[in-house]
Formats: sequence, structure tokens, C-alpha cells
Amino acid sequence: MDYLKIFSPATVANVSCGYDSLGFAVDAIGDEMTFTKSPNLGVEITNITGADLTYDVDKNAASAVVQKILLEANADFGVQLTIHKGFSPGSGLGSSAASAAGAAFGANQLLGNIYSELELTKFAMFGEEVACGSAIADNVAAAIYGGFVLIRSYEPLEIIKLPVPNELRLVAIHPQIEIKTKDAREVLPKEILLKDAVTQWANVGGLISGLHSNNYNLISNSLVDIIVEPYRKKLIPYFDEVKNAAIEAGALGAGISGSGPTIFALCKGDEIQKEVYNAIEKSYRDKGIDFELYASKVNPVGIKII
Amino acid sequence: MDYLKIFSPATVANVSCGYDSLGFAVDAIGDEMTFTKSPNLGVEITNITGADLTYDVDKNAASAVVQKILLEANADFGVQLTIHKGFSPGSGLGSSAASAAGAAFGANQLLGNIYSELELTKFAMFGEEVACGSAIADNVAAAIYGGFVLIRSYEPLEIIKLPVPNELRLVAIHPQIEIKTKDAREVLPKEILLKDAVTQWANVGGLISGLHSNNYNLISNSLVDIIVEPYRKKLIPYFDEVKNAAIEAGALGAGISGSGPTIFALCKGDEIQKEVYNAIEKSYRDKGIDFELYASKVNPVGIKII
Repeated sequence: MDYLKIFSPATVANVSCGYDSLGFAVDAIGDEMTFTKSPNLGVEITNITGADLTYDVDKNAASAVVQKILLEANADFGVQLTIHKGFSPGSGLGSSAASAAGAAFGANQLLGNIYSELELTKFAMFGEEVACGSAIADNVAAAIYGGFVLIRSYEPLEIIKLPVPNELRLVAIHPQIEIKTKDAREVLPKEILLKDAVTQWANVGGLISGLHSNNYNLISNSLVDIIVEPYRKKLIPYFDEVKNAAIEAGALGAGISGSGPTIFALCKGDEIQKEVYNAIEKSYRDKGIDFELYASKVNPVGIKII
Repeated sequence: MDYLKIFSPATVANVSCGYDSLGFAVDAIGDEMTFTKSPNLGVEITNITGADLTYDVDKNAASAVVQKILLEANADFGVQLTIHKGFSPGSGLGSSAASAAGAAFGANQLLGNIYSELELTKFAMFGEEVACGSAIADNVAAAIYGGFVLIRSYEPLEIIKLPVPNELRLVAIHPQIEIKTKDAREVLPKEILLKDAVTQWANVGGLISGLHSNNYNLISNSLVDIIVEPYRKKLIPYFDEVKNAAIEAGALGAGISGSGPTIFALCKGDEIQKEVYNAIEKSYRDKGIDFELYASKVNPVGIKII
């Protein structure tokens, strides 16, 4: 293969109770990237559209990953890269992860598909480190594996792909405000009550059991975050209004996507998804803050060649 | 039905990562109880064997539960009760839970099976309160539902029955020392690090996903408790020796059953179970502490009529 074009999805990490452990891939939002083999070794970014990102190959998450993977594989070719961002950086929908994961996937295709999904996740985590300063796995793993993923462990890295009930639908609203991941981390306490941790891990268990057993009621009951959301929601204007509107319209649950500001809601089926979409739109319409609103399936396969 | 005899199983609560949230029922250890309808209203304990427990119907966990359930159902009959304890109170294997859950189950049979498993769990929790001072659900729910259970929530009470991979086997050693549940609670910190909680809930997620998907490797990797075990193991002589012996012999994992002192190990298949049994026996043989050693399947059905 000398050329390919891919779609690399946006991702929702944390997913209420699953802070730093859970993520899922989005179907309707993502980046498009092209990879072209070149006789000149190394990586070159030939075009970036849709967002104002650096062309510096050491600092751009995508090119940094391609560079690392080519070096590791001792490739006898270089890669020319184009990136079309389909959604905004800083949204909390895994923008750098989509670039980094897509880069790992694309470079691996040009190499003849020599790396496993777990290895690609590790390469993509390097891209997260370049972009955000920390090698977090939840977004990149969700993009690479597709569907829901559990980061069972970092040392060693273990990613568990979870089943996706097929009526699961997403609505996400991205208020056009900026939250830095660093600020979102600093607002969290270092210590939490043991009894709250028990409540949270019972919900993590319930959510994962619900995904395995197509139990939407259990998924709904488990989509609760008593640890992180109470702190982070203060950074997101009108969070409670959006969440309440979504749940009143029939959403299974709603929470903060990644470190925000995007708020996600999960729903069962297309009809409820529409009602939740409308309810969220209405709840934010007159707030004086611009926003983007998305409706999507959960993406069961992750990155794909288009 | 005017008479029945039941087997009410021992149970392992907490199950490493799942402190206060997970439990499972044991096949080879449990109590036997009989229930006989009587024209005289109220409850009478006619015989207790196998342990030195009170005949005071308000203070005995079993009779207190029968009393409550008869009252609630407005029963026009009384019950005579016999209890044969098949394992020691204070073992950490849910002795009071076996009595309380068995009592709820038996009384419900005499009433014509009018209560759901969830309702029986609530009645049995009252027995736990009588016996231990707190209405904990993990042991009684495991006895009533059978297999593995997740206490997803207390308010409202929500119990999730989880699948049991059919080669899962248990070895449990009960060193004949006493640990009071109260002491086992007091040794725990009130607060824990958020990052440790994340590690723990990723393991809870992994364990539950492993049970759903028959993934013994994932179950093994997830049977880790970094929160509670480091504190409680100090109350159990030679805990590390037993755990290491079990794991070296091929156990999937090992930990503290309930609040101890029983140490449980889970294994895949009969052969490894035998090796783990022998390894644990050897590790405790010359320590100068009497012990009982058990090998069992996981009990998929819970309490049963015999």
C-alpha cells in the first residue's frame, strides 16, 4: 500500500463513573487523514485544514507518532501526511487523540500492518504526550479499538474492548469555551472518601455489566459520577441545565466528555436521541455562548480506511 | 408447603478489588436449616447445632428475619426453626448471612413464594443488622441470588447477578483466629488517593468484564486489591505466604474473604484447584495456628431446597 485515506473518530473519555478508565468512539465526528509513501525518509505534513495546528513534525501529535513508528520499524520510506480536522481541538472529544491514533493506524498500514492494536495504542499515547504532556490511553484506545474500551491497567498496558449495545446513541454539545486539561486536573482533589470510591466502582461495575448484557436500565443507573463531575462541572457554564434537560428528555445519562467542556448524553434508540438533541439545543439556545451540537451512533470499529 | 429443609451457602464478599460491592456463593460450605409451619404464631428455634448461637428469637439473625417476614406478610401461622451451622461464625465466609438469607428464603417458601430475590435480600439484610450491627448486602445477596453478585447501589438497593465461568474454582483457608468486623473496619482509612481509586475501579471493571466473557486471564489480572488488603492483611497471620503459595501454584488470584480471617483463592479448573489446595495447606501447616481448608465450586444457584 502506497497511499491511504482514513477516518479517525472523536472519542468520549471518562464516561461518567469511569474517570481515567473508560472511553468510547464516536461515529459522526472525526478527522480525515491521508498517508502517502515517499522515497524521502522522515515525515512531512503537506496540508492541515479545519484547525490551526503546527506543521513542526516534532510537535504535531500526528507527525510525531508517524515519525516514531517509522523509526521503530526501521522503515525504508518516508510519509507525507495531510490532516483535515473535523472537530475542534480543546473540545474534550479527543482531538489530539484522533490525530495521534489515526497517525499510528495509517503508518502501520503503509508498513503492511505489522503492529497490534495494543502496540498502536502505545505509539498513539506518545502522540498524546507530545500534544498534552501526558501519555493517557483512554481516547487513543477508544479510537483504535472502536466501541467502548476499558483501560484495565497502564503498567503493563491492558485494554479491554467491551461490547456496544446496538441501540446506544450519543448526543454531544460543545460549548465554545476553553478548558485546559491541566486546569481540569488541578480542580480535582488528590484524596477522596473510601465510601465514595465504593459507590463509584459499583457504578463502573454496573456500567460494564450493562454493556455486556444489553441492559439499558443498568447502564442508565450506572452513568453516575460522584467523584469528578461535582468539581469539573463548575468549569462548564449551564452544565446542570443541559444534563437535566437531557435526562428529562429520556437520556440514559449525561456527563462531561473527557475534561470538558463537551457534555455528552447517551440514549437508547433514534427517537429518544432526537428528543434529547432538541432538549439540549433548547437548554443552551439563549445562553449567549456559541455551541456545536452533535448526534451520533457509537462507533463500533474505530478508525477506518475510507 | 408445611415443611422444608434448605442448604444456605457460605459466601465470599469483597473479592479483592470489589470491596463492599462484590460477592459470590460457595458450593461446598453452608448451613442446613429446617422450617416447619406451626399453628402457634411467631417463631421458635427448636434446635441449633454446629455452633453456639443464641436461641433468643429477637437476637438470632435467622429467627429475627423469619419473625420480620411473617409479620410483614401478615402470616396466619408460625414457624419452628432448626439451624445446623456447617461452618464457623467469625470466619469471614458470611456465617450470619447464610443464616439470615436462609431464613428469608425458607419463610418465603412457607408463604407460597410471594417475595422476589430483591425483597428477600432486604429481609436478610435486617438479619445482618441484628447479627453484626450493619445491614450489609454483599453476603446475603450472594447467598440468595447465587453465583457472583454486584451490589450496584444501596439506595435504592440494586443487585446485579453476574455470570460465572464454569471452570471457576475456590480454595479457602480459615485460620482459627478471631477478627471482629468492627476492627476490620476501623483499620481502614477514611480517605484514599484518587489515583488508587482509579486503579481499583479499573480492576472492578476488568473482573466484571472477565466474568461476562469467560476471560480467565482478565479475571486473574483484575483480582487485585490495592485499597483494603494492604491494611487488613496485617490482621491475618501469614497472609502473604498463603497468597504467594496460591499464586505460585497457579491460582488466578487470592485475597481476603469478607473482613477475614479466611483467605480465598480462585482457580481455573479442578487440577489447578488441587495444586492450590495443597500449596496453601503446605504454607500453613507448621505455623502453629489451627485452620480449616476448603475446596469448592462457585455455587451458581445460591440457597436450595434439599
